Amino acid sequence: MSTTSRAIASTGRVEALSDGVFAVAITLLVLELKVTEQDAEGGLWHALGRLWPSYLAYAVSFAMIGIMWVNHHAIFSRLALVDRSLMYANLALLAVVSFVPFPTAIVADFIRDDRNARAAAMFYGGVGVALGLAFTLMWGHISHHDDLLKPGLTNQGARRQYRQSAMGMCSYFIGIAVASVSPIAALAVYGALGLFFAITSAHEPLDLTLGVSDQAPTAA
Amino acid sequence: MSTTSRAIASTGRVEALSDGVFAVAITLLVLELKVTEQDAEGGLWHALGRLWPSYLAYAVSFAMIGIMWVNHHAIFSRLALVDRSLMYANLALLAVVSFVPFPTAIVADFIRDDRNARAAAMFYGGVGVALGLAFTLMWGHISHHDDLLKPGLTNQGARRQYRQSAMGMCSYFIGIAVASVSPIAALAVYGALGLFFAITSAHEPLDLTLGVSDQAPTAA
Amino acid sequence: MSTTSRAIASTGRVEALSDGVFAVAITLLVLELKVTEQDAEGGLWHALGRLWPSYLAYAVSFAMIGIMWVNHHAIFSRLALVDRSLMYANLALLAVVSFVPFPTAIVADFIRDDRNARAAAMFYGGVGVALGLAFTLMWGHISHHDDLLKPGLTNQGARRQYRQSAMGMCSYFIGIAVASVSPIAALAVYGALGLFFAITSAHEPLDLTLGVSDQAPTAA
Amino acid sequence: MSTTSRAIASTGRVEALSDGVFAVAITLLVLELKVTEQDAEGGLWHALGRLWPSYLAYAVSFAMIGIMWVNHHAIFSRLALVDRSLMYANLALLAVVSFVPFPTAIVADFIRDDRNARAAAMFYGGVGVALGLAFTLMWGHISHHDDLLKPGLTNQGARRQYRQSAMGMCSYFIGIAVASVSPIAALAVYGALGLFFAITSAHEPLDLTLGVSDQAPTAA
Repeated sequence: MSTTSRAIASTGRVEALSDGVFAVAITLLVLELKVTEQDAEGGLWHALGRLWPSYLAYAVSFAMIGIMWVNHHAIFSRLALVDRSLMYANLALLAVVSFVPFPTAIVADFIRDDRNARAAAMFYGGVGVALGLAFTLMWGHISHHDDLLKPGLTNQGARRQYRQSAMGMCSYFIGIAVASVSPIAALAVYGALGLFFAITSAHEPLDLTLGVSDQAPTAA
Repeated sequence: MSTTSRAIASTGRVEALSDGVFAVAITLLVLELKVTEQDAEGGLWHALGRLWPSYLAYAVSFAMIGIMWVNHHAIFSRLALVDRSLMYANLALLAVVSFVPFPTAIVADFIRDDRNARAAAMFYGGVGVALGLAFTLMWGHISHHDDLLKPGLTNQGARRQYRQSAMGMCSYFIGIAVASVSPIAALAVYGALGLFFAITSAHEPLDLTLGVSDQAPTAA
Repeated sequence: MSTTSRAIASTGRVEALSDGVFAVAITLLVLELKVTEQDAEGGLWHALGRLWPSYLAYAVSFAMIGIMWVNHHAIFSRLALVDRSLMYANLALLAVVSFVPFPTAIVADFIRDDRNARAAAMFYGGVGVALGLAFTLMWGHISHHDDLLKPGLTNQGARRQYRQSAMGMCSYFIGIAVASVSPIAALAVYGALGLFFAITSAHEPLDLTLGVSDQAPTAA
Repeated sequence: MSTTSRAIASTGRVEALSDGVFAVAITLLVLELKVTEQDAEGGLWHALGRLWPSYLAYAVSFAMIGIMWVNHHAIFSRLALVDRSLMYANLALLAVVSFVPFPTAIVADFIRDDRNARAAAMFYGGVGVALGLAFTLMWGHISHHDDLLKPGLTNQGARRQYRQSAMGMCSYFIGIAVASVSPIAALAVYGALGLFFAITSAHEPLDLTLGVSDQAPTAA
């Protein structure tokens, strides 16, 4: 390892802060869900039912943040060390993650408003692009600094993830294009993209993780 | 262990994210409690007293989430590894946990509203069913993948917990049936169910945990 | 150690959940602070100044929760294991801790309202009593189960802390009595009590902690 | 080490609480972002665009808290132990960190209000001074208690950081002076200060951290 020229640290606290931000962002989504007494004048069941766009947005965003967390986990399961650039790239990613409740609320509030539904779905897609960009930056940095990797790992996997993240970012642009025609179809695209990332990453980084686990049983 | 064919990881970060979500969800409950200046025009004590349904809902939900956390702890005290399916099952459980503040607010706001109290209590029970379902899924997966367990443990305990979770899920349906008649009685049933889970699990998983602790002093 | 008859576990996740709840509760206090455009019509500085009861309540509650956290830290620095009773006692403590933002908001909103200031300050004191009770329960349990302590520690320190917590709980009753006469004086009493706990505990548990640290360098 | 006369503990839980507070404070910033149906009557894109001061404040505060977290990380990467004074100094720092969402909201709400923009930007700078003060206190304490440092480290680095923090605190006063003339220019100064801290600290503490990492591979 030729790390002496750069400032590095172990990954523990970066993971702790990240887990905290993911946990808070994913839990704040519920604050969007509200039924006032006025809403319930036509009956509570009716009012609860009328919230379906909020449930849908809750589900999509929970899945989105959850899958991002699994991917974040995949990143750090490869890393032995972080340098300061990676810390700041990680903070940029966390800035986007903690921003997600806002576009979620926008979609929930405006998806039924014919005049604004397109804008809402496009705005949501824009945040998807930002998420893809942040992951692309992180994987790109890692693939160029293999001294951060756990012993025995090469940057081959990181390069593959880098290309996939860049593709993922681009495919959110397709979602935005769809949103300019049909907002509901765009939500379906965003959901499908999440599923795609969940499935492809299932075949990818975890074999490496397993390999690492086998070679060196990791501490908490 | 025959884990080479599946993607696995250590449990550290899954527990960290889960603890974060439990902590945030349990603490967000307090945001429901509010006294405005108008509320207090008849005196602050009176206004504080009138909030009893909110205190009750706060207590029931805090107990519910707290007991769920103890059960979650019982699950992970058996596990040495997680696979991706279990990660997603865990995310589904966390989605329900972080949803709990919403039905809690619904019960607090509508339990005194004769027209809507039944719906509120039934909705709350529905979330209890979802929690039971999520735990059943997790225990079911574990009981079929004993390679995830800590060395020395068999899946016997997991199978027992699987059956208990399924029974717990069903008993929330009884609570919903009660709610369709008497909402307050239903809250008592939900509280009793929580107590039941707290007591039965007290006799169950912890002997195993202890066994594990004795065999291999666990890291933080 | 004769722990075989009870269900026990290591302290890691109990501490993690607790740190999460303390962190969220202490950070939610800021949500009370708000200046609307209407508030600022007489000038922003004036509006910011008029919030002094909120700053005071923020400071007192932050100090209260912070000191409670230091005391909680002192408890767990002695423990090697937790049993289920202690888990539930800890959850009860966390329920009070996460409740603190509510009486804080009550004090901030009503301390200048002559008709309701007394009730607000007494209510706040009631939560102080509940905090003292929760700590007394925890120390009492520990002092009767010295098999939970780290090797080399006796329950002497726990018994001393038990008596101190009980005294602390009682002294909050004095604060409530003061509040029935002068709400502002009561806030001063609560602040003084916090200071008292901070100072007395400074002479108490930490020598023991140090002893433990010296004997067995603890993991994260 | 001559620590026997003072109460000390390991750093684990102090870091855990701190990471939690940083994570919550940084994620609560998003709650400021809101678009109501009324806001969107002129079109959602227009309403989203009109929120630019909120995005700006979100970005500046996210960067501010993020950089503070990196600096906090730099402090604790040097420490082997904490004493009670440092615990309370750390709590004071956390009190300021968790306060940041309030001045952020003030800036977002009033930066376009000609009458109040100056006050908003000066208030924000005041919180920057408080942050600098808290860091100065911490570094000052550490530079006078080198028995808290990891083996092999001297207090030379801490003394340098102490002087830098004090200078940083002072430079926020310059920001406040600028704010009394041009609020927008002041925001630029605050951003530049953040960048300055990020860059200078990049050259400073991390070489030491690396040195420590090399000597003793740290646990999570």
